[in-house]
Amino acid sequence: MDELKARILSEGKVLPGNIIKVGSFLNHRVDTALLGRMAEEFAKHFDISKITEILTIEASGIALASVCSYLWGIPLVFAKKAKSDNIENGLLCSEIYSYTYKKTVTVMVESEFIKPEDHILIMDDFLANGEAIRGLTDIVREAGATLEGIGIAIEKGFQGGGDKFRKAGIDIYSLAVIDSADDCKIVFRD
Amino acid sequence: MDELKARILSEGKVLPGNIIKVGSFLNHRVDTALLGRMAEEFAKHFDISKITEILTIEASGIALASVCSYLWGIPLVFAKKAKSDNIENGLLCSEIYSYTYKKTVTVMVESEFIKPEDHILIMDDFLANGEAIRGLTDIVREAGATLEGIGIAIEKGFQGGGDKFRKAGIDIYSLAVIDSADDCKIVFRD
Repeated sequence: MDELKARILSEGKVLPGNIIKVGSFLNHRVDTALLGRMAEEFAKHFDISKITEILTIEASGIALASVCSYLWGIPLVFAKKAKSDNIENGLLCSEIYSYTYKKTVTVMVESEFIKPEDHILIMDDFLANGEAIRGLTDIVREAGATLEGIGIAIEKGFQGGGDKFRKAGIDIYSLAVIDSADDCKIVFRD
Repeated sequence: MDELKARILSEGKVLPGNIIKVGSFLNHRVDTALLGRMAEEFAKHFDISKITEILTIEASGIALASVCSYLWGIPLVFAKKAKSDNIENGLLCSEIYSYTYKKTVTVMVESEFIKPEDHILIMDDFLANGEAIRGLTDIVREAGATLEGIGIAIEKGFQGGGDKFRKAGIDIYSLAVIDSADDCKIVFRD
């Protein structure tokens, strides 16, 4: 998606450890008009009419998934991290390693919110090593639902997470794939 | 908002400790069409044309704030909790006590994302004791910006957080105020 790539080049910052910061428009301050245009791009790739539910994970994926959910008229479920007081029994769970927080966290969805008959589109703002998304695919499998695909705004291709899903035959579509960010220079995959 | 109150009565669950669960439509599974109608209700109360930025806090407030942001054409900023690797220096911060997680957490916004000339509408899905929202008002004050008001989906009136802001002269508008949830019976404020 050319507009997204242009925003990454003009506003993104590469921090040590090849962390790519796009907090000015995607995951801290959020340009929701851009998210609306991203929804149009995803709808060109995925057959939205087949999707019964969008699944994302807190926190920053919620913004993109909410705008897509609103525009497509499809409900959204967001997986939660760690256990809080207001989550009851009956959970679909997966353990993932968070490189951001350097610890293992449990991602969970209450089992009543994903049914075996659901057709799920997983969405997130970022994909790097793919741990968070792998956790969400575990949850879809545990629920017995059908995974229709994975929609990502920005994929850090050089961390390999996206290609793992591609090799597994999953329909993953990223609006911008960054293949390297060495020396603070961002290079996109064609 | 009658539709919201009806959904709370039909789908909400009262858990021990007067925790009110509305995970089936607001903060786990999310009915974003309902969020769109909530945006219309908020727009009847607040002068949206004066707002330059919506401020919320991760995680569940992001869904409501994103749909409002999209429909109103106003950018969104969400405050983050705790420190992660991809937040640099230059932070607007406040300490809040999270009753959900039973610990003190730091909420933060990168200072470049709220300017002194901004007119801020704070939004969240829930307000109970008001700690999270108090943290956001601290951040608005620290930034030197103007707080135009606070928009809340569900206020637990019996926990007093909302009334503290009303007494302080802040324009806070909640679409549903629950005045008691004793014996699992939800009673709304008129």
